[in-house]
Amino acid sequence: MARKVEPRILSGFLELLPEDQIVFDFMKNTIEKTYAKYGFVNVETPLIEYSEVLLAKAGGETEKQIYRFNKGDNDLSLRFDHTVPLARYVAKNAPYLVFPFKRYSIGKVYRGERPQKGRFREFYQCDIDIVGNESLDIAYDAELPLIIYDTFTNLGFDKITINLNNRKILNGLFNELDLVSVKDDVMRLIDKLDKIGYETFKESLKDYISDENTIDSLLKFLNIDGNAKDTINALRELNYSDETFNLGIEELETVINDMNSLGLSENNYKINLKIARGLDYYTGTIYETFLDDYKELGSVCSGGRYNDLASFYTDKVLPGVGISIGLTRLYSKLKEINFYKNEMKSLTKVMVIDLEGGKEKALELTSLLRKENINVDMPHLNGKGMKQKMQYASRLGVNYVVILGEDEVKNNVYALKDMYKGEQVIVSYDELLKILK
Amino acid sequence: MARKVEPRILSGFLELLPEDQIVFDFMKNTIEKTYAKYGFVNVETPLIEYSEVLLAKAGGETEKQIYRFNKGDNDLSLRFDHTVPLARYVAKNAPYLVFPFKRYSIGKVYRGERPQKGRFREFYQCDIDIVGNESLDIAYDAELPLIIYDTFTNLGFDKITINLNNRKILNGLFNELDLVSVKDDVMRLIDKLDKIGYETFKESLKDYISDENTIDSLLKFLNIDGNAKDTINALRELNYSDETFNLGIEELETVINDMNSLGLSENNYKINLKIARGLDYYTGTIYETFLDDYKELGSVCSGGRYNDLASFYTDKVLPGVGISIGLTRLYSKLKEINFYKNEMKSLTKVMVIDLEGGKEKALELTSLLRKENINVDMPHLNGKGMKQKMQYASRLGVNYVVILGEDEVKNNVYALKDMYKGEQVIVSYDELLKILK
Repeated sequence: MARKVEPRILSGFLELLPEDQIVFDFMKNTIEKTYAKYGFVNVETPLIEYSEVLLAKAGGETEKQIYRFNKGDNDLSLRFDHTVPLARYVAKNAPYLVFPFKRYSIGKVYRGERPQKGRFREFYQCDIDIVGNESLDIAYDAELPLIIYDTFTNLGFDKITINLNNRKILNGLFNELDLVSVKDDVMRLIDKLDKIGYETFKESLKDYISDENTIDSLLKFLNIDGNAKDTINALRELNYSDETFNLGIEELETVINDMNSLGLSENNYKINLKIARGLDYYTGTIYETFLDDYKELGSVCSGGRYNDLASFYTDKVLPGVGISIGLTRLYSKLKEINFYKNEMKSLTKVMVIDLEGGKEKALELTSLLRKENINVDMPHLNGKGMKQKMQYASRLGVNYVVILGEDEVKNNVYALKDMYKGEQVIVSYDELLKILK
Repeated sequence: MARKVEPRILSGFLELLPEDQIVFDFMKNTIEKTYAKYGFVNVETPLIEYSEVLLAKAGGETEKQIYRFNKGDNDLSLRFDHTVPLARYVAKNAPYLVFPFKRYSIGKVYRGERPQKGRFREFYQCDIDIVGNESLDIAYDAELPLIIYDTFTNLGFDKITINLNNRKILNGLFNELDLVSVKDDVMRLIDKLDKIGYETFKESLKDYISDENTIDSLLKFLNIDGNAKDTINALRELNYSDETFNLGIEELETVINDMNSLGLSENNYKINLKIARGLDYYTGTIYETFLDDYKELGSVCSGGRYNDLASFYTDKVLPGVGISIGLTRLYSKLKEINFYKNEMKSLTKVMVIDLEGGKEKALELTSLLRKENINVDMPHLNGKGMKQKMQYASRLGVNYVVILGEDEVKNNVYALKDMYKGEQVIVSYDELLKILK
């Protein structure tokens, strides 16, 4: 016999057993349906693009992680996010798109990161962006937290806190305190503040800021806390004159007001002046999302407002605001803590089992039920009997089994067993349909 | 200003505008839902695998088309179909699967074919397979034509003909007529028969068969026609003694009987003794599907029964039966003939438009309607008025628009416009909900 090839897969690539795939698909479909509910349309881009196009902006760490290869004369790369393909798509198709352009993309992206627990090389990103032509109304910044809240509620979470900030406030702060030259370094420290604690933070600040008063002002700013209204008042009371700073406060206030009109409870969001989300890309509102009962997951949905999406491809100025959910990572974390338990074992509602003399009627029944859009299966086991067929239904986690033998056919009835409750009843077709629907 | 990169994509890669993506997604979702209705579960495999694993069986033409590259020390390839990953998946996970294992896979595969009209290098395949452990009941062969019929009916077609044959009949015929040594050549000719016509076919046969009687016998077999019952009778009347041949007839008859029990009309299938579907892989029932009003599309769904799925990875014998729809090709052909017209312009049901004094109430309304699971959008256009907002709704193809200004807010009513019919009515919230649901 020929040598067998070991049927292994690459590390960092998630592949699921059917019962896990059902949970994953539930999450993916929930996200997609929620995005569509807010008027977003699907855009699906190729997995492979010209490297020249995909890497127009990239560099450093990102570029090292790319799956890049030649095919014929072409230098190709696999997409590593949905943002670059979106930029390329909008630049390419702008004349045919309606702006503000609301699109979602849900699909796999590729990064050759060092494999380690919880890191994937092939993973789903679920993105939405609203892209404006030349300008984009601030009202869209208020829509995204609603979508985040709705999505995670639909995924089964009840304690969701969306952290909001505005990059203009941070940038204005650095102007005001004359810290522009050390902005990136200080921002990086602020990003780490929760990890390293206030004492270390204060010490580290001294590497970049010599003036004690400036450090005190910075700490005063970072210590602002409370509900959204209090926070905005406290920011105003700083009496900073920097225009960017004050524009940031105004934007934040507008967003908060619209979110209130949209019905988002104060329990589900807060202003967090300490979040910055990287150094360059975002220019206004920024978001991070935490599940209060699962804080160890970190931010499960992040994003923000940017000034210009596609400057590498077009002169058109395309401001936007967007968020992203790292679905593969989220799924795998939830799987670890068994969050969904065994709630979704099978998408098949009923298994039709034929005994001696029941096959023809059983086949007919499967077609009748499928016409009613019920997911139906019927095991065919090369003549094996009732016991094996019941085992088959049970192992697949099907909720109902209908048993059809000579007696049932003769009396025109159906033996219906609820596999979860263990109860069996004899019913007519109409009764059967009613229970299954 | 920096040089811009041209935002182009690779040829052979389909990327759609939003209104076309809606049609594509309708087709994909329809196929997926129909597959699930018959008890199939989703299996999603990585896009990238070890070349050693993916190419265990491949060779020749297939291997030349593969997207293959190195990343670090690994020799990798992109999947070129769903069958090889299924084989690898079943071999890898057999202890955790329930057999017969019914799985579907809907996703992109990659083949670097010469780019030409209608050929894609990245394309969706939508596969189902039922895989048995050591054996697989023939009853599953009858289920697949039902699924094909149901799928294409749901896709909007009403004249569907599924062609059936059985490779055992063809193989048995070659045994009986002592043509085993020229089997592959003659089979290739039979595959071309419809294209080249009977006269050329007969002439070409002489290259392989010297005996006139044998040629006559072959032609007699190929001329068998009529409904399924007549065809089976005619095959029996040939009185061939070859066991494989007669087993093939029996299998075909069983499949036809079960299909009848399942309710498939004789109008929607026929036995076509001239289809062979390649030389080696299939070993029993084979399928091809034609849309009677769109014959130029060729077979839109094909497949068949095979003896052993995963012999390259495991000693376990895994017989199966499956079909595949080439969705990208099908979509692009239907797009060419404008099959779906403009039936599916937008998934957004209603656009809420606020005028002076209506913004807060309008924002509230969007949230209320979304809680009812209605897809809602609300344009925010930096202060632009009614006209631009109506244009936005109209360009997106939304069915309904709700207009909310001071008057409507004061009177607690909603102006609802049906954009397709051009009619506008003033309604209460309950009436609004009733119309939109």
